[in-house]
Amino acid sequence: MTIHKIVSHLDTTRSAREELYKVFHRMPELSLQEFRTAEKIREELERIGVNEVNQVGRTGLTAVLRNGDGPVVAMRADIDGLPMAELSGKEYSAEGVTQVDENTGVETPVAHSCGHDVHIISLLGALEALNATRDSWSGTFVGVFQPAEETAAGARDMVDNGIATKMPIPDVYLGQHVLGVIPGGSVGTRRGALFSQAASIRITIYGKGSHGAMPNLGVDPTVLGAAIITRLQTIVSREIAPKEIAVVTVGSFHSGTKSNIIPDSATMLLNTRAYNAEVSASLHEAIERIVRAECEAARSPQEPDFEYFDVYPLTLNDDDVTDTVAAAFDGYFGDDSVEMDLVPASEDFSVIPDALGVPYTFWGLGGFADHTSAPGNHSPFFAPDIQPTLDRGAEAIIVAASPWLMKEN
Amino acid sequence: MTIHKIVSHLDTTRSAREELYKVFHRMPELSLQEFRTAEKIREELERIGVNEVNQVGRTGLTAVLRNGDGPVVAMRADIDGLPMAELSGKEYSAEGVTQVDENTGVETPVAHSCGHDVHIISLLGALEALNATRDSWSGTFVGVFQPAEETAAGARDMVDNGIATKMPIPDVYLGQHVLGVIPGGSVGTRRGALFSQAASIRITIYGKGSHGAMPNLGVDPTVLGAAIITRLQTIVSREIAPKEIAVVTVGSFHSGTKSNIIPDSATMLLNTRAYNAEVSASLHEAIERIVRAECEAARSPQEPDFEYFDVYPLTLNDDDVTDTVAAAFDGYFGDDSVEMDLVPASEDFSVIPDALGVPYTFWGLGGFADHTSAPGNHSPFFAPDIQPTLDRGAEAIIVAASPWLMKEN
Amino acid sequence: MTIHKIVSHLDTTRSAREELYKVFHRMPELSLQEFRTAEKIREELERIGVNEVNQVGRTGLTAVLRNGDGPVVAMRADIDGLPMAELSGKEYSAEGVTQVDENTGVETPVAHSCGHDVHIISLLGALEALNATRDSWSGTFVGVFQPAEETAAGARDMVDNGIATKMPIPDVYLGQHVLGVIPGGSVGTRRGALFSQAASIRITIYGKGSHGAMPNLGVDPTVLGAAIITRLQTIVSREIAPKEIAVVTVGSFHSGTKSNIIPDSATMLLNTRAYNAEVSASLHEAIERIVRAECEAARSPQEPDFEYFDVYPLTLNDDDVTDTVAAAFDGYFGDDSVEMDLVPASEDFSVIPDALGVPYTFWGLGGFADHTSAPGNHSPFFAPDIQPTLDRGAEAIIVAASPWLMKEN
Amino acid sequence: MTIHKIVSHLDTTRSAREELYKVFHRMPELSLQEFRTAEKIREELERIGVNEVNQVGRTGLTAVLRNGDGPVVAMRADIDGLPMAELSGKEYSAEGVTQVDENTGVETPVAHSCGHDVHIISLLGALEALNATRDSWSGTFVGVFQPAEETAAGARDMVDNGIATKMPIPDVYLGQHVLGVIPGGSVGTRRGALFSQAASIRITIYGKGSHGAMPNLGVDPTVLGAAIITRLQTIVSREIAPKEIAVVTVGSFHSGTKSNIIPDSATMLLNTRAYNAEVSASLHEAIERIVRAECEAARSPQEPDFEYFDVYPLTLNDDDVTDTVAAAFDGYFGDDSVEMDLVPASEDFSVIPDALGVPYTFWGLGGFADHTSAPGNHSPFFAPDIQPTLDRGAEAIIVAASPWLMKEN
Repeated sequence: MTIHKIVSHLDTTRSAREELYKVFHRMPELSLQEFRTAEKIREELERIGVNEVNQVGRTGLTAVLRNGDGPVVAMRADIDGLPMAELSGKEYSAEGVTQVDENTGVETPVAHSCGHDVHIISLLGALEALNATRDSWSGTFVGVFQPAEETAAGARDMVDNGIATKMPIPDVYLGQHVLGVIPGGSVGTRRGALFSQAASIRITIYGKGSHGAMPNLGVDPTVLGAAIITRLQTIVSREIAPKEIAVVTVGSFHSGTKSNIIPDSATMLLNTRAYNAEVSASLHEAIERIVRAECEAARSPQEPDFEYFDVYPLTLNDDDVTDTVAAAFDGYFGDDSVEMDLVPASEDFSVIPDALGVPYTFWGLGGFADHTSAPGNHSPFFAPDIQPTLDRGAEAIIVAASPWLMKEN
Repeated sequence: MTIHKIVSHLDTTRSAREELYKVFHRMPELSLQEFRTAEKIREELERIGVNEVNQVGRTGLTAVLRNGDGPVVAMRADIDGLPMAELSGKEYSAEGVTQVDENTGVETPVAHSCGHDVHIISLLGALEALNATRDSWSGTFVGVFQPAEETAAGARDMVDNGIATKMPIPDVYLGQHVLGVIPGGSVGTRRGALFSQAASIRITIYGKGSHGAMPNLGVDPTVLGAAIITRLQTIVSREIAPKEIAVVTVGSFHSGTKSNIIPDSATMLLNTRAYNAEVSASLHEAIERIVRAECEAARSPQEPDFEYFDVYPLTLNDDDVTDTVAAAFDGYFGDDSVEMDLVPASEDFSVIPDALGVPYTFWGLGGFADHTSAPGNHSPFFAPDIQPTLDRGAEAIIVAASPWLMKEN
Repeated sequence: MTIHKIVSHLDTTRSAREELYKVFHRMPELSLQEFRTAEKIREELERIGVNEVNQVGRTGLTAVLRNGDGPVVAMRADIDGLPMAELSGKEYSAEGVTQVDENTGVETPVAHSCGHDVHIISLLGALEALNATRDSWSGTFVGVFQPAEETAAGARDMVDNGIATKMPIPDVYLGQHVLGVIPGGSVGTRRGALFSQAASIRITIYGKGSHGAMPNLGVDPTVLGAAIITRLQTIVSREIAPKEIAVVTVGSFHSGTKSNIIPDSATMLLNTRAYNAEVSASLHEAIERIVRAECEAARSPQEPDFEYFDVYPLTLNDDDVTDTVAAAFDGYFGDDSVEMDLVPASEDFSVIPDALGVPYTFWGLGGFADHTSAPGNHSPFFAPDIQPTLDRGAEAIIVAASPWLMKEN
Repeated sequence: MTIHKIVSHLDTTRSAREELYKVFHRMPELSLQEFRTAEKIREELERIGVNEVNQVGRTGLTAVLRNGDGPVVAMRADIDGLPMAELSGKEYSAEGVTQVDENTGVETPVAHSCGHDVHIISLLGALEALNATRDSWSGTFVGVFQPAEETAAGARDMVDNGIATKMPIPDVYLGQHVLGVIPGGSVGTRRGALFSQAASIRITIYGKGSHGAMPNLGVDPTVLGAAIITRLQTIVSREIAPKEIAVVTVGSFHSGTKSNIIPDSATMLLNTRAYNAEVSASLHEAIERIVRAECEAARSPQEPDFEYFDVYPLTLNDDDVTDTVAAAFDGYFGDDSVEMDLVPASEDFSVIPDALGVPYTFWGLGGFADHTSAPGNHSPFFAPDIQPTLDRGAEAIIVAASPWLMKEN
């Protein structure tokens, strides 16, 4: 079969890909500051012979491989690291690597603790194999190197900077993530919701300062905040259908600095999760309703402020596309093609296909031989096995794209 | 001194007053149903020779004793009993006495467990003594026999039925209550607030019924009520100045009847207390604000209902009148004239003088030799010592009135 | 095929079954008082020719049909009605039917508003067909007529009264329920959890009575109860995994009777739901922990009381048995064999197979042509379409049993 | 009268006292770092001719004036400034003055924003006048210059460093504070409680960290803290007698730093106030009870920590001493001798007399001509009128001491 011819090209690039992985692993960069990463990807694309490369926004790239008639398949790899110190102990660890955060001017440790470097190498490997075996397939394959997934800003940035004009509009949009929740070397598909919607909200509530001995002269925002946090629990317990998954977490509440001074205001940071857009909307409606009403109950002198940030859309895999990819995976990987559960995490992956009006699916890539003890993504100890992960990551892309790109012969 | 002449007349009526006390004690009647009581008082007034007696409303009476030029002093005695069974064990106990409640048609036990019969006898005794010693004083003395103190309805009833036209407008309005909180035989005065403002509120809150397994299809009034009750605690703890006395009690909350049915509504009964009209107003404003806001927080489908009942005004003794009476008590009773603390109870006494625009004072009458173990008012065991209570109650009236009525000689 | 021969026997009993259905519909009886119902079932069994009939407990019956070698299949029908008035308007309505509740002595309306009469007729029809076509199958079929499903007491009563000795131990235990949540005439299967665990808890919490104006002399159980209800919301919102279905409803809270009296105690009625035994245990642990701790916080003078009632087990269909039955349904009913969602209701069905150590499955039977507007079970308007419901109910039993009983030929 | 002779000596020192006041005002020092202040006081005492001066602890001084037989009267002046910038705009303002805080190493602005410099000058003026008029009185007068009132540490420091051996044990201990709550130039006395007890508590509560999307894997200390803050409101609303003054303020609550991370612990700062030692003890018992119980309710993995700090005792003026001083004030100051209300602030004044077993009284000194618009103590704008405040402060000391020290002649 022609698919095997493409995949087998990966044998010729294996050691180069492994070395390149270590290079990227040692140069993690912060979200929207992935300048060296983008530059290195561009160099590699040139070396491979992919010539239609477009910059999209600050650090995004599209790499287009046109190969005759046929559907257009786009595959996304996110490229940013995290502001944390790696503790994996690997010889290729990024321990000690730092970068100055442009927003704060502070030098911070950086690490690829979410495995986006695996995604880069997998996509480059697939591009190289597809380019080298153009006679085995037909259509167009686009690699999308997306910045700033970690801050939910990168996909939006590529949309806002005209990604629609920097690549042919695809027929299908694909993505993958290396994870510890499925067996090492396996690929995991799921129809419908995969990653949750998520949003963070910074809420400022207003009281009126007073000496602690004269609470009646003030409006106590600490007691108000406690009432709000307590009342927010009823959203999940009473307002959302028991069968729906919904989470409202108040991760932080800060009020006052002294025992005997009632402060003027207090701030809380909330995070919501849902796997259903209506539920998500209900959570936000309920949060705002409750906060406003509790402020009224407390005779708060000023309307509360709501600032949404880190807003992640739902990742809602298209049933047909997912079935197509799952069938291809089943055929090629056999028992290594598994079904995923809902993942209690979020992605900005869907922003681009939703903006383009394109169906999508996103799958998981098992990165740890002993996945039962695998560190979670964002752990300082996160460091997937290099193999079979890198091979499987590239293979999965080729196999997933094959239903659209393979010649009928 | 002339005052002693009047007072000494009580010696001649002592045993008659004691017998009459037992008669009244054995015929307690419910609020606004004091028909036999009023009839008996009217008989006694006739016997005494007080001829200007007016009915005011259903069961109220004014008895006017005109005696030449001079100020007008009014003295109030409340006359109703309580719907409870007496357990005092006295030989003159009203044990077994019942009356049919007009409002419910139910026969209920009745008892003078708040000592209003002492007030009746004291006022009758004072009237008799004053009438018999008209040469010793000058002016007008009015006895006001007021119904329904226990339901906060009687003073209002007399005002609504034209008490202002059934007696000369007094220069001063006086009242007393037999109590266990001061030594037996003593009289206790207090400037300013004596009895608290009190009000009861029936609040109905609305949810939306649902099966208990599907809370999202309803609005849970039980959780809403719990939020309200919890939040009401902040009124006293945060909104009212720490130095003010204020109480908000939710005495009753009723919601639902089955474990697995979320009901449509719930009801709570509140009681408020304060010794300051502004504080009282603040309590009610805060209660309504909090209840309304919590209903909004819960997306309640209907505005809550607030029904005020048993609304008692503040008893706020006039400083000058109180000083005058206290000085008279000090002069006559010596160490038996004491200062009262705030009393955690309420009275409708002030309704009439407030309606008439007349300054007032209200004093306490110690009714138990061993006041440290005295049963509280409204206890089934409440039964004051007959003496010196009956004498002292009549004397106190004469002495309190004396600064206005005594001839300067 | 032999199965069709058995099923086609139903054509000969159709009008008799429809008439019999109306008879049962008009004689609903309260739980554990189904004396006439059991008597009528016994009569019918005699008429059909099922001779091995055993009484189990007060009103339970087992009807055993032995037919040579082979597996033993038991099928359960519950037989009790509900204490409510029917408002269906059907000509065969039980409107006006009443029964005296043995526990209270009160005469109460009764109705088959949960469709147990459908279950009876379906099982009798299947028994008659199986008995009439003994040459078409082999093995043993047992009809279990179970009382008191509505009070969660009947299956337990049959176990306690030795059902294990009143029938051969089956290889598989089956059950069905007429419902409006699937299309009329369809049968719905589901692997794993189908009906939720459910339990009710009566909790009494203790305070210390006091006058409402002196809260410091008491311990306020109303405020304590509000704290408990509020805090219980955190079980679902914080303690249970977001992907689990769990409900804690406080359906009722009763505290006090007067606005100004702080009562001695308060009572609340809780209901819990879960589809997982561990979750259910966690709910109950958390409820008791929170109630006890809140009582300590309030300096409650007495430990709270917990009384569990209406405890329903989880209905957790056996995967293999369900697959077997679903395959038989798919083969026989085609598109009318559907997959069920979780049902937000509870059953005591599993008590008997769990006691016997036998795998089971329970399926749904669509009872309304227009199921989108079907009244819910326990609605006064609940009245399934007579046909195809009665036919389908009997067919489903025969088809479900067929994998065990059909002769291989 | 001899008292006038002593007081009139103040006329001779007026301008010197005013200049000296400005010197002290410009050299405010932090608590327990009042080295230059103590040195300057010692210089002045030498100049005046008070030779028996003892250092007590780091920066405390006792100045003993022995003058024959008779009672011993001690008068306290506190001497420390506050870590804040003065904004009074006075020409003698300490604007710009800073001191390095020994505890933190941080340079901080310092100001006499609580008027302790007035106390120093008043006491020095009284000492000078008494020393210069020894023939007019008899007994012993002790000036106690106490450090660190602002941190509740100075009086304790003097006790711990043997003040009992550094001065004759007094018969009475006196103190005063310049304030804006009474008319300028007046002196205000009060029997019984004057300043409240106060204490601060740092409470750390423990949860278990978790990702915000998986609350069930953690124990949420933010929700726990909200439950505690909410429940603490019931102490004042339900547990403390309505007539008692009690305040429980949670001035600060800090939990977490990110919206989607549930933290391991949270911290709150409480402040309590009461005017009665039993109430104060009840507040602390209730706080600890509620916090511990709520931690249990939340299955907190670790006992909460309670750290008390800034613990101020009650200032409970001795009735007899206060009556004596008030009578002396009435006699000397006439209408400028007023009665004080409870002051919603705290003092460590009583620590020394309580340690010595000596009765005390503390009075207020009006420092602002227009006291209705006077800035509060600790305001950056606090700057009393120099006169008549300095004169009145010295006079008040002499007059208050006179009942014990004046010769009978």
